[in-house]
Amino acid sequence: MRLLEERIAREALAPAPDVLRVDMFLNHLIDTRLLDAMGREFYRLFETERGRITKILTVEASGIAIACAAAAYMQVPVLFAKKGVSNKTLDRETYSAVIRSFTKDSLTNVSVARRFLSAEDRVLIIDDFLANGAAVRGLREIIAQAGARLLGVGIAIEKGFQPGGEQLRREGVHLESLAIVESMDPLRFREQY
Amino acid sequence: MRLLEERIAREALAPAPDVLRVDMFLNHLIDTRLLDAMGREFYRLFETERGRITKILTVEASGIAIACAAAAYMQVPVLFAKKGVSNKTLDRETYSAVIRSFTKDSLTNVSVARRFLSAEDRVLIIDDFLANGAAVRGLREIIAQAGARLLGVGIAIEKGFQPGGEQLRREGVHLESLAIVESMDPLRFREQY
Repeated sequence: MRLLEERIAREALAPAPDVLRVDMFLNHLIDTRLLDAMGREFYRLFETERGRITKILTVEASGIAIACAAAAYMQVPVLFAKKGVSNKTLDRETYSAVIRSFTKDSLTNVSVARRFLSAEDRVLIIDDFLANGAAVRGLREIIAQAGARLLGVGIAIEKGFQPGGEQLRREGVHLESLAIVESMDPLRFREQY
Repeated sequence: MRLLEERIAREALAPAPDVLRVDMFLNHLIDTRLLDAMGREFYRLFETERGRITKILTVEASGIAIACAAAAYMQVPVLFAKKGVSNKTLDRETYSAVIRSFTKDSLTNVSVARRFLSAEDRVLIIDDFLANGAAVRGLREIIAQAGARLLGVGIAIEKGFQPGGEQLRREGVHLESLAIVESMDPLRFREQY
């Protein structure tokens, strides 16, 4: 997606060799028009799965905006996995998985309430970044626990120089990334058009 | 907003006397159509401030979807305050405040990067719940630190039996709540139409 690649090239910072910071338009300050364009692009890219998707699954917090933008076009609900555990506000009955965060170098428990995901669901995962694939792996675990079916994975920015994307493609997952960063220095994107 | 009141009446659970659970359409599973209708309603309610708002400010995670829905109509960026601190992904230079969570009975540090909020900004705060007003108070502190101006506060569900809303109105803040719960048992809403 040229629009996103241009924004990354113009604005994204790389504070460390393998860290890309997009908090000026996606992960802290959100550019509303860009967000809508990303939602529309996911809608286009998952055209063949479109009518079959029953739910979009993402992780709080930075996946929520992108998932909602796609969901607005696909007209399906968004389910976002919660981090940590809160007794009062989340069902005790949950599906859960542990995600190792690449940027934060930490382990995070993510969970969804069982009653919101069932064996009837056909799920599209949407997330902001794909690097080593830890978040997607965690969400797939949750989908598997529910007996639901994964229809595809939509990513805003894939780090093509890390193994997550290739692993998913090798496993036959329908993966669509709006921008694939091949190298950080110099910044180069994988040609997808 | 009748649509939201109907959903609360039909689906929301009250696991404790003063806790309202809306994770079946707003805080965990998100109903995309309801979300869009809420965004459109905020757009209508803040008609007089509309052209002057430069940014919508909210807190991760459950405020993000609602803020983005309103921002899509108002065509302004969303800035979401982050909880905790992450060195690699957030500016060291931040405005920050401490929020006492009513539902979780905990203290949370929230912050925004200084470079995303300035004295030129005229800000609309959007959040999912207003009870004691702790989150709004924290966000107002951040706005004050930036020297920015608060134009209004938009809330999905206000607990009218708790003091946050009345305090804000008494201070002259333009507060709009899509649904105001007057009592939980029996469930009753404040007439606003």
